[in-house]
Amino acid sequence: MTELPQDNLTMLSLVKEGGELEISLARLPMPQPRDHEVLVRVLATPINPSDLGLLVGAGDVSTARASTRDGLPVITATIPPAGMRAMAGRVGEAMPIGNEGCGTVVKVGASPEAQALLGKTVALLGGAMYAQYRCLPAAMCMELPVGTDPADGASCFVNPLTSLAFTEVMRREGHTAIVHTAAASNLGQMLVKICASDGIPLVNIVRSAEQVALLQGIGAKYVLNSSAETFQDDLTAALIETGATLGFDAIGGGKLASQILGAMEVAAVKRMKTYSRYGSDTHKQVYIYGGLDLGPTTLTRNFGLSWGLSGFLLTPFMAKAGPETVGRMRKRVVDELTTTFKSHYSHKISLTEALNPNVLAAYNAKRTGEKYLICP
Amino acid sequence: MTELPQDNLTMLSLVKEGGELEISLARLPMPQPRDHEVLVRVLATPINPSDLGLLVGAGDVSTARASTRDGLPVITATIPPAGMRAMAGRVGEAMPIGNEGCGTVVKVGASPEAQALLGKTVALLGGAMYAQYRCLPAAMCMELPVGTDPADGASCFVNPLTSLAFTEVMRREGHTAIVHTAAASNLGQMLVKICASDGIPLVNIVRSAEQVALLQGIGAKYVLNSSAETFQDDLTAALIETGATLGFDAIGGGKLASQILGAMEVAAVKRMKTYSRYGSDTHKQVYIYGGLDLGPTTLTRNFGLSWGLSGFLLTPFMAKAGPETVGRMRKRVVDELTTTFKSHYSHKISLTEALNPNVLAAYNAKRTGEKYLICP
Repeated sequence: MTELPQDNLTMLSLVKEGGELEISLARLPMPQPRDHEVLVRVLATPINPSDLGLLVGAGDVSTARASTRDGLPVITATIPPAGMRAMAGRVGEAMPIGNEGCGTVVKVGASPEAQALLGKTVALLGGAMYAQYRCLPAAMCMELPVGTDPADGASCFVNPLTSLAFTEVMRREGHTAIVHTAAASNLGQMLVKICASDGIPLVNIVRSAEQVALLQGIGAKYVLNSSAETFQDDLTAALIETGATLGFDAIGGGKLASQILGAMEVAAVKRMKTYSRYGSDTHKQVYIYGGLDLGPTTLTRNFGLSWGLSGFLLTPFMAKAGPETVGRMRKRVVDELTTTFKSHYSHKISLTEALNPNVLAAYNAKRTGEKYLICP
Repeated sequence: MTELPQDNLTMLSLVKEGGELEISLARLPMPQPRDHEVLVRVLATPINPSDLGLLVGAGDVSTARASTRDGLPVITATIPPAGMRAMAGRVGEAMPIGNEGCGTVVKVGASPEAQALLGKTVALLGGAMYAQYRCLPAAMCMELPVGTDPADGASCFVNPLTSLAFTEVMRREGHTAIVHTAAASNLGQMLVKICASDGIPLVNIVRSAEQVALLQGIGAKYVLNSSAETFQDDLTAALIETGATLGFDAIGGGKLASQILGAMEVAAVKRMKTYSRYGSDTHKQVYIYGGLDLGPTTLTRNFGLSWGLSGFLLTPFMAKAGPETVGRMRKRVVDELTTTFKSHYSHKISLTEALNPNVLAAYNAKRTGEKYLICP
């Protein structure tokens, strides 16, 4: 094992009182693992939309300017007043970033479970992954097979567990098919494979003909282009055919969630024998789990009174689902890491490159088909 | 007992293919009770917003014109094309109206439970109450104490059971306080009394200073005027104080549901110890149970990811709650009919008066403080 450096280069995001966002690299002291902990050299860590929520938040990246401090890059950007209200809780606190990652265990504490991981490739969940090293409890590491490519192990948690969670929610709430938006994403492609293998009808909604081709190429049966003129009719036809009454929406803003609920209602009314002024009594549910469009959500409420729209977040779902379900989900992720749960990265960048304003603007655009991996 | 007439004057609502709404009075044959049924002379039946959904639906009452047929009044109005799509399921079927009512049992079937009701004053639920007589199973009647004023017995179901259901939902979902909009309504006043007696903190939202005075006059503690400039701050303060994370909204359209969820989130974040980019993990729920504003609902989603917005309807709630709960709720309604559940009617009209276009326009406006009772 090579000698460890004294410092641990770490990315920090700071919201300043005056309405300024500062993203920087800092030399923090190298952490020392306690008995139950391991020190991991981070080899790959993805930039997920949820990471950008913490890294950039309400900052206006079009105002980003680069500088340096102690020879390390710094980005400064303006936060509009409305954004500052939303970020009031984190003013003055330089926060580390990065939900998940993959790396090699280079130093361990005295406990047997920590010792057992020395030299192993592990997947990590727990924040602060945008750093060269991360020290955390052995229990928060998931051991990966020998020879796993760190790029494959970097996204073991957020997308794989979220896409699996969608099917768990479906079963728990008594639905039999799923609608998914922004479906050409890495997560969407995983969901296509899960549903194909589990026999779950999945209606994929994407925003371009290229994305239709992409998903059909991996075997998706229902792929609808929301920018097509026939979209609402196509959606209704797919919902009549599949009977899907559950949707997961990564977009959030605009009318899409409302369109989905409306089409579900048309499909449900078609199955009814008698007219009811209240619409169908079929419960229709859409979960918003992302905010690709941060604008307001508009609901026309032309879908009766048996409907729900809710936020969805993986962590509280897993807490509710319990350790047995979560254990089963995790096992499936490891078993199918290079097949179902294979992530595709369009760009691999260093920590320093991540602090280039042009690169920041590119990954902050969250374009479907573009996914960034940081190799610290 | 007086001789029964041959005909039963009944109000009907018909949507015609060409986009026309026709509301009429018709002489239907007098029904004859079967063994388990009773025939009730309807003495009082309220016009609830849910009745207007069936009576008027998407019809444009500003186009209403009066005529007569066989000496009985007819109203005709235009239905805009968008409205016709929503009403496609009922085209060509003349539908009777009126969810609930109160009357005297004038004729009964052979079964003991039907016989037991002869001459009694009963509250009725089951549609087709806008008529001089209603024949229905004895089991669908709720016997009222001797001497009950039909006006008091007319609204035994919809408003009393809905307001009680709000408190049942609160307990079932683990909330401890309630927010209610359009709170000066008959239903809102019942809820004020229920919550006062049950010790449930209730945040009432109304739209004018007069309504604030009205609710304070019956002992409401938190009454907020949504047209006041300080509304959002007032709401946040009330939610911090009460900890309410459950709302029932009769308005539906506009930003109010979003404002409530946003204020709940500010209150929840105030209780948090550490910052989370996802907002609080306190689940915040608003149910839309009415549509006083039929326009779109706009959600700014500045309330984290732990939230839900759903439709609410009494009937599926009661089916889910089960007979024991519903029985307890009904008993309370009868016990407190002239106190907690006393309805106030601003206008009493006949079936014929209900078919005057000016009167129709007035009750269809659903103004808080104005409530119509039909005495057939």
